Amino acid sequence: MCILGLGLIGGSLLRDLHAIKHPVFGYNRSPISAPGLDISTSLPDTLTRAAENNALIILATPMPVVPQLLAALPPQCEFTDVVSMKTAVAAAVHAQGLDAQFVGGHPMAGAAESGWEATRLGLFQDAAWPIMLDDAATKPHLWADVALLAQLVGARPIPTTAARHDAAVARISHLPHILAEALATTGAAGGTLALSLAAGSFRDGTRVAAARPELVRAICEPNAPAVLAALDELLETLTTTRQQLHATGTLGELPDNGHAARKYYEEVSTAALSLPPVEVCVGAPGWVQELEAAETAGRWVRVLGCV
Amino acid sequence: MCILGLGLIGGSLLRDLHAIKHPVFGYNRSPISAPGLDISTSLPDTLTRAAENNALIILATPMPVVPQLLAALPPQCEFTDVVSMKTAVAAAVHAQGLDAQFVGGHPMAGAAESGWEATRLGLFQDAAWPIMLDDAATKPHLWADVALLAQLVGARPIPTTAARHDAAVARISHLPHILAEALATTGAAGGTLALSLAAGSFRDGTRVAAARPELVRAICEPNAPAVLAALDELLETLTTTRQQLHATGTLGELPDNGHAARKYYEEVSTAALSLPPVEVCVGAPGWVQELEAAETAGRWVRVLGCV
Repeated sequence: MCILGLGLIGGSLLRDLHAIKHPVFGYNRSPISAPGLDISTSLPDTLTRAAENNALIILATPMPVVPQLLAALPPQCEFTDVVSMKTAVAAAVHAQGLDAQFVGGHPMAGAAESGWEATRLGLFQDAAWPIMLDDAATKPHLWADVALLAQLVGARPIPTTAARHDAAVARISHLPHILAEALATTGAAGGTLALSLAAGSFRDGTRVAAARPELVRAICEPNAPAVLAALDELLETLTTTRQQLHATGTLGELPDNGHAARKYYEEVSTAALSLPPVEVCVGAPGWVQELEAAETAGRWVRVLGCV
Repeated sequence: MCILGLGLIGGSLLRDLHAIKHPVFGYNRSPISAPGLDISTSLPDTLTRAAENNALIILATPMPVVPQLLAALPPQCEFTDVVSMKTAVAAAVHAQGLDAQFVGGHPMAGAAESGWEATRLGLFQDAAWPIMLDDAATKPHLWADVALLAQLVGARPIPTTAARHDAAVARISHLPHILAEALATTGAAGGTLALSLAAGSFRDGTRVAAARPELVRAICEPNAPAVLAALDELLETLTTTRQQLHATGTLGELPDNGHAARKYYEEVSTAALSLPPVEVCVGAPGWVQELEAAETAGRWVRVLGCV
């Protein structure tokens, strides 16, 4: 394996693979002092070595750097990525004509901290690791290799497509960030009295507004179309509630719907962790349909190998 | 002291006052088995005893029961309340012509649990206990008695008015509940894939949607005017953000504003607990202004007595 970019995700992946003695080397633009780890600051040297060893390349840089890395990749080298916006990466890969060599992924193990200093062993244990199904039928071996990589570091592969991934994270990650910012703003507009009376509901509802503004922009803005769709849905719910509260003095169906939705979420997230994975032989007849069924059921998968 | 209604708040207050040997008796509609505590199921007997002992009466029933209790109060008995909607209670008190005998309060020690079974010693330790300043200048002794009651059980008296209280809780308690319901609904509409990818931001942002729907209605709907005002402010912020994201692909000022608001909240809530109280002699020249200044500064107060 060859990892390009050794920030929180790439660096932790290098540590985990090294710890289990899986052959791995990495490139980082700035030097990193990590005795025993195989790290270079030369991109050309690293890519030459990847080509010689037929290594699986893992793109682990921020999104803005991805296009120039794609342009430098050795011909025929297969690669994956760990960037959070899957349609944006897929478009950049397509623009370079590299679709046949690429299966995208997104280990969901982000944190407020970033950079090599934040890396640690075991970061991916039990983490969801969506792996993209787009055109998977044409590249079973590569799909299996990416899933096996996730499994090597203890993560749970979750099959989906780039579009469905981006729509999902807009709902359950980007929208919560935007709401937390808006709630914090509205609460603070009530001044010190309001804030001195604030308790658990406000504290929890605004927690992620403590994230650095540039980080919130970096995760939400590249996913603007999906975020807009989710935000419009939410605005419709809130506007309906507003009209009912004004006209009838009641919240209408919102408390029942919200309560049922939260209970559904609790069931799904409990099941996601407690149910055993769906075991799949990649390349066997119907393997893509098996993965799509697992996605629909909210189940993770374990790849047994590739036939 | 005489407590009418022994649910979570009234019952815990009875336990605390009894524990420090402060004379206290209570009324509850349904019988309560609590050896050693002075509890009656007869409202007329309890009110006769309150009149004979010139007791401070504490209304601790749900809001719908308050008007009939007000109609039954002995003439000249002074009273306070622990109901969460301060303008609604003040209006009911005014309708009965009892303003001169009343100072409202709201110990902020609610919980998901309710009823006598949920009562416990120490529930009010360090809790904010807003006490209403409306017409306070005309009734300093009663204002001081209510503040001293809060202090007896370890709570922090916070002076404010009914209107400012209700506007503040709309922002920092009712609005977070409505947003949590709406976010849960929008997240769950993404199905099992979205929910299986949800992490901390969604979990925290929807936590209070787990509250029973009838509880959410009971706390939000009686405060409809203030909730509407806060919801309209929030909708304006979100709509502006939506337009900017659509037009420019950016979140505009929202991340900076939200981050600054959250940091401001953290400062205020830390200061609220760590700064010493503003000490006030009720009835001394300028005492109401001193309390208003404490409210503006987000400080709690300690009443030293009444001159």
